[in-house]
Formats: sequence, C-alpha cells, structure tokens
Amino acid sequence: MPKAFSYEGVFSKGSQDTPIRVVQHAKYDFAVAYPAPETLPLDGLTEALKIALDKNGDEIARNMAYYPQVAGLPELREFVCEKLWQDRQFKVKPDQVMMTSGSSEANSLVIQAITNPGDVVITEEFVYAGTLAQLRKFGAVIVGTPLDADGIIPAALEDLIKKLTKEGRKPKYLYTIPEHQNPTGSTIPEARRREILDICHKYGMPILEDDCYVDLRFEGKVQPAFRTLDDSGIVIHVASFSKIIAPGLRLGYFTAPDDVLRRAMSFRSGGGPSQFTMYAVDSYMRLNMDKHKSNFKPMLKSKRDAMVSTLERYFSGTGATWSKPQGGCYVWLTMPKGTDLTKVQQACFDDGVGYIAGSSFAPNNNGDHCARLCFAFESPEKNREGVALLAKLFEKHGVPAMKKSGATKSAARS
Amino acid sequence: MPKAFSYEGVFSKGSQDTPIRVVQHAKYDFAVAYPAPETLPLDGLTEALKIALDKNGDEIARNMAYYPQVAGLPELREFVCEKLWQDRQFKVKPDQVMMTSGSSEANSLVIQAITNPGDVVITEEFVYAGTLAQLRKFGAVIVGTPLDADGIIPAALEDLIKKLTKEGRKPKYLYTIPEHQNPTGSTIPEARRREILDICHKYGMPILEDDCYVDLRFEGKVQPAFRTLDDSGIVIHVASFSKIIAPGLRLGYFTAPDDVLRRAMSFRSGGGPSQFTMYAVDSYMRLNMDKHKSNFKPMLKSKRDAMVSTLERYFSGTGATWSKPQGGCYVWLTMPKGTDLTKVQQACFDDGVGYIAGSSFAPNNNGDHCARLCFAFESPEKNREGVALLAKLFEKHGVPAMKKSGATKSAARS
Repeated sequence: MPKAFSYEGVFSKGSQDTPIRVVQHAKYDFAVAYPAPETLPLDGLTEALKIALDKNGDEIARNMAYYPQVAGLPELREFVCEKLWQDRQFKVKPDQVMMTSGSSEANSLVIQAITNPGDVVITEEFVYAGTLAQLRKFGAVIVGTPLDADGIIPAALEDLIKKLTKEGRKPKYLYTIPEHQNPTGSTIPEARRREILDICHKYGMPILEDDCYVDLRFEGKVQPAFRTLDDSGIVIHVASFSKIIAPGLRLGYFTAPDDVLRRAMSFRSGGGPSQFTMYAVDSYMRLNMDKHKSNFKPMLKSKRDAMVSTLERYFSGTGATWSKPQGGCYVWLTMPKGTDLTKVQQACFDDGVGYIAGSSFAPNNNGDHCARLCFAFESPEKNREGVALLAKLFEKHGVPAMKKSGATKSAARS
Repeated sequence: MPKAFSYEGVFSKGSQDTPIRVVQHAKYDFAVAYPAPETLPLDGLTEALKIALDKNGDEIARNMAYYPQVAGLPELREFVCEKLWQDRQFKVKPDQVMMTSGSSEANSLVIQAITNPGDVVITEEFVYAGTLAQLRKFGAVIVGTPLDADGIIPAALEDLIKKLTKEGRKPKYLYTIPEHQNPTGSTIPEARRREILDICHKYGMPILEDDCYVDLRFEGKVQPAFRTLDDSGIVIHVASFSKIIAPGLRLGYFTAPDDVLRRAMSFRSGGGPSQFTMYAVDSYMRLNMDKHKSNFKPMLKSKRDAMVSTLERYFSGTGATWSKPQGGCYVWLTMPKGTDLTKVQQACFDDGVGYIAGSSFAPNNNGDHCARLCFAFESPEKNREGVALLAKLFEKHGVPAMKKSGATKSAARS
C-alpha cells in the first residue's frame, strides 16, 4: 500500500479548511433557529404523500424517475404562486418561481448573481449569521444600518448610503428580513417600507427581501412585503417552507425579474431540492395548510409569552431590554452597553442554557451586549425554567448588570 | 409605480445569463439518464417512512425540527458505511461520509476544493456532461484520455500525462466513472485499475472516482472500486442513491481524507439534502434493499437486451458498433467517422426519438459520430420500437452510413 497521499498544493486557492459543523444542544436550547418540533406535521406529511401516491402514483413515479426540473416541481410552483397571491398579494407566474434547497440556497444564488468581491452591501445592524457568511464568502463588504423596535430606520439608511457614497463606497444592494427579523424579532411597518423603497429607487439599490418568517405571525397585522408594494423588479423576494413545516425539509423559493432568475440559477451546483419532499409538501399544503396554521399559532404565542414574562421577572432592574415579537422565533435581549455576552456564551452553554450572542449577527461589531433567544423551540415550561437559569448563570459568570441589580435573587425569593 | 428597474451594472462578473433548463421528452426517450420508473419503490419508500414514524416518531420529529447536521443524517451515514463495506469492501467511519444533494453536488464540492482556474484535469475521452459543465464552471481545462471497450487505457493515460507535462500543462487530477461509465457503458477491469492507480501515484494525481452506477450491475462480476484498491487517500469516492432508488430524491454522498472533506464542504451553499428524504431512504434501504435489487436487475437486463438486439437487427452492415454494458443505463453507439449525429439530433427528437450525440460528452471534440442511448428508461417494447424508428430517421435525415447500407430497408423486410 503506498504511503498517505498529501493534498498539499492540490487544494484550490478559494478553499478553506474549516471544521464541519456538528449541531450540539444545551439542556435549554435558545440558540437554535427553529420552530416547535411538536408542531411539525410529520405524520400529516406522510399521510398527504400516501394520498397523493394512491391517487396519482403512476404519474408521480414517472416524474420521480426523471431528474427534477431545475426550477422545481411545477405543481408546487403553481401552489407557491397561489400562496404568494393569498398571503402576500402579489402576482407571479410559476415560471418566475424557483424552488431551492431552503431559503439559504436562494439567498446564496442571488448573492452570487449580484455580488463582486469588494462590493458594499447594506444589511440590518444585526442580521442572520448565515447570510453574513454567504455575503462574506462571495467577497461582500457588509455595513449594518441602524435599527429600532420597528426595524430599519429610513432616515438613518439614507444617511448611511450618502456617507458610504461620499467615501467612494457606494452600496450595491440592501439585504433585509422585514418581518419578525432574525435576530431582533422586529417588523418594519408599511409606511417605513414605502420610504425604504423610495430610497432604494433613488440610489438604484435592489432589495433582497428575505421573507421567511411571515407565516409565523401569531398576533397583530401582517405588513405588506416590499415585493407587494413594488412591482418594478427592484425587489428580489425569498421565502421558505422550512419554518412553516420543518427546517429538515430544506425547501425554499425565490422570485425575481427573469434575468436575475437566470443568472442566479446559473450558480446552482446541486440538483435542487428533493422531488420526494416537494411532492409531500405540495400534497400536504393543499390539504392541511389552514388547519396547520391554526394549530401552531397559539403554541408559538404561549412560548413567546412564557419567555417574555420570565424575562420580566428575572431581568427587570438590570438595565436589560428585550423585544416582544408578534411572530417568528426570536426574542432579542439587550443588556447594558459594556456587557460581554459573547465571552460567557460557552460557559452558559456548558451550564445548560444555549443562546447566540449578538456579535454573531453584527457586521458593525457592536453586538457583544446582546443575545438572540429562540422562544419557538422549547416548551413554555422550559422557556420559563431556562430564562430563570440564564439569569442565575449571568450572575454566576460575572455579567455586571446582574451583580449590581441583584434581580435574580430578589426575583427568586418572590 | 416606478419604472422597471434595470440590473445592468448590478450583475456579478461571474454570472451567466443562461436559459433555465426545462426537461422535454421525445416519444422514445433514449436521451435521459435515468433508470426505469416502473422499478421505483415509491410506495415502498412511503411505507418505510410510515413504519419509521410509527416506531420512532418523536425522535424523528425532534430531529426534523433542527436544521440537519451539515454532514447529513447520522443513521444514514452509518448505513452508507455498512453499504460501502458490504458492496465495495472498504471501511470508512460515518464522520468520513458526507451526504449531498445528489452525486452532482458531491462532484461540484470536490471540484471546487481542488480546482484553480486554468488547472488541467483529465477525464475519460467521453464523459458525463454534467461533470464537464462543473469542471468548466470552475475554470478547469479538460483533456480526455482515450478509451476502449474496457474504459481508460493505462498506457495511453501515462502517455497523455507525459505529453501534457512536457507542454508545461501538468494535469492536476483524474475524474473517472469506472463502472458502467456514462456515456459509454464500459467498466474498467481490476488489473487496469491497479495500473491506473500506480500511474496516478507516480505523477501525484488524485482520482475523483464517480461510482454512481455500481449498484446497477445485472450481469458479470463487479470490479473493485479504486477506493477499495487504495487506502492512501489519493482516491475521492463519490456515489449516489439517485440511481438505485430514484433520481428525484437528489441524494448522494462522498468520502475522502478529512482535509478534503472539510475544504469541499466549505463550498456548500444550500443546507444539504432533505432530512425527510434521508429518513425515508434510511428506513427503506434497511428494510428492502436486497428485495429491491432482485426486482430491478432482471428488468434492466431485459431492457438492455431489447435495445442491443434491435441495434443488431437495424444497424448491422452500416459500419456502426455499439457497447453491450453489463449494468448501468447506457449503450454507446459509434457510427463510422464522418457521421454527424449532432446535426440530426434535434430532427430525430422532433420525429420521436431522443438521444444525446457524443459531442456533448467529448472534451476533445471528437464525438459527433457517437450517441448515448439510455436503455434503462423506456420499456423493452419501446426500446425495440424506438431503435427501429431511429434507424429510419437516420436514413430520412441523411446519415450516410444508413443510406449506403440500406440496412434499415432490408431489415424491415426480413
């Protein structure tokens, strides 16, 4: 047997020797980005697939034998058009919808189509780490625009664009999660969206709208998508079935002007999402969507309530603030400036509570005093226990605000 | 409403405005690259998924709620290790197996990890067009090495490496489909594989072994994989469930030295294959694999026999030759040099017979007189009808060999 072969000098210049991520879970897992496992309609999915096979098995078998259409199962793309019209009130044709391996593939394909290394891209000040990674991978220079409780602040966005342009770093496009934002939980109201659209038209900046949480609203009024408010082509709209049915499906989609679709799809390297999964989802959604929504919405709300009320109990008086989102999966915890939640993240994980410190979401490096807490995954009971434990752990690991306030102890005694 | 937004100046330099492929089928479809739809175990897959859910639903639901492990479902990776040991007699650990969205994603990830623009890569003289496209996309300069009925000719390969090296174009690696090759149907015998391995070690060239057809052998003796014969790390082994169960699953895998795995996986842009599909396949394979194999093998053989015997009947005397593969999906038809099957491909398609001319598989641009005929997709009856019609169409569209021989007419009269 020849000696071990070395790949020194063989690897491509662009390749990176990064560890392959293995997901690990704390006892109280607020670090994940997933909805509730007990709301997953897995039996329903299987049942729906069986019904479809009984009814239409020969055709499905024949279609499964082919490699899928690059754009994805035509029936499901038709369903997506109906869904977008019903839920988002904008009209597209099945040809203008591309099914992808989760919304992350959709984002990646679009980013590759419109990003040259060195391009400046604006995102929310705190934003989904997966998109930050994709943007960096393709060479984008990311600048975060300031947020308040209503998401992107239009005037601040325009100031930022002007400032960057003056510096010779004119931003190319805006990436945003306007509804139940990841990680802050904020939703941009319609009036702001219209202002942001005007600004983007003024400066010729497309909007990559990541609308993957809109189905997870459990109270308040859904806001119109950027894409609903603007049919000019400036908005590229990405969404997903991962949040509403199950992340493990890896099934998302996007719609955009035809030339954007063609260029984005030219970067696909796999064959797209599983045909099997697409048949199951198509059949399930047509039979059960409304029932499913009415199932999981009260569940999500009770989980948010459990987390927020426990934050009130244990974090009041520490100088901390937190969001109270009307949907999605995340509460955003903001501790007093100077707090370093990045530093104690691993220690808290080891002691039983997982969260993601704001630094993971912060292109401007201003997130150490913040944390994303996913309320959607654990039960209400575990949300309560876990937040109470987190307060203790912050104190144990020397988070100053907790020591000063003594909030944990007094609350624990009450 | 603002006027239409133009993406001029927004698109990235690497993006290409290429049409999104829509699959179309001729009446007799020998152009596809798929096994038989009637052999697809779709009901079995659904049944297996139901059994798994009944038995273990809570755990599955919890795992579906998470985003999948980047490497893929651990149980299925364990199964792949057992399968590789049983069918290919080499041992790897689950950590060394990465599940991918079809073997095409596996190939793409590896190609990205080991290819710089301008690198010279050797493939078979005729080879899977999807891999050619991936290689080109990442800037490889592809050179084909000569084939005979037993696949790659070792002496010719070494001559080619020497020639390229002398020209200052030292080849970097070898991509090969050693078993039931796509498109030629050839299998490299063990002795040749050992010679090729020696050559690759001598010149420091890794082998990217695409072993995706090995499960589709219906006669003769399976040959050991390159990876079976060599444990030094020089062989990167890619395989797939797409061919044995259903292409629409998009489920493949690869194994390689750890550093190759890490670098390859760093190029993943979607989230990997569907968890739902992986559960279904895992459950199905453990329950039914042997039964399934004994079902589809006789079916594939009868389809090959139908195609080859009809070629004998209608193409004898034209100067044509064709392969008689012991597995896989393809017969390779070679007409006399000077024949242009590329030119008449569309006309034959329009008249009811689909095939892919050899030019699609030929990095050296020497494939116009050849064609790939997929025998695995249509029924034996349609294979016979379609090949008979193809002979007529070649004559109708002025393929010289057919005119000269008059083979079609005499055969049709016999």
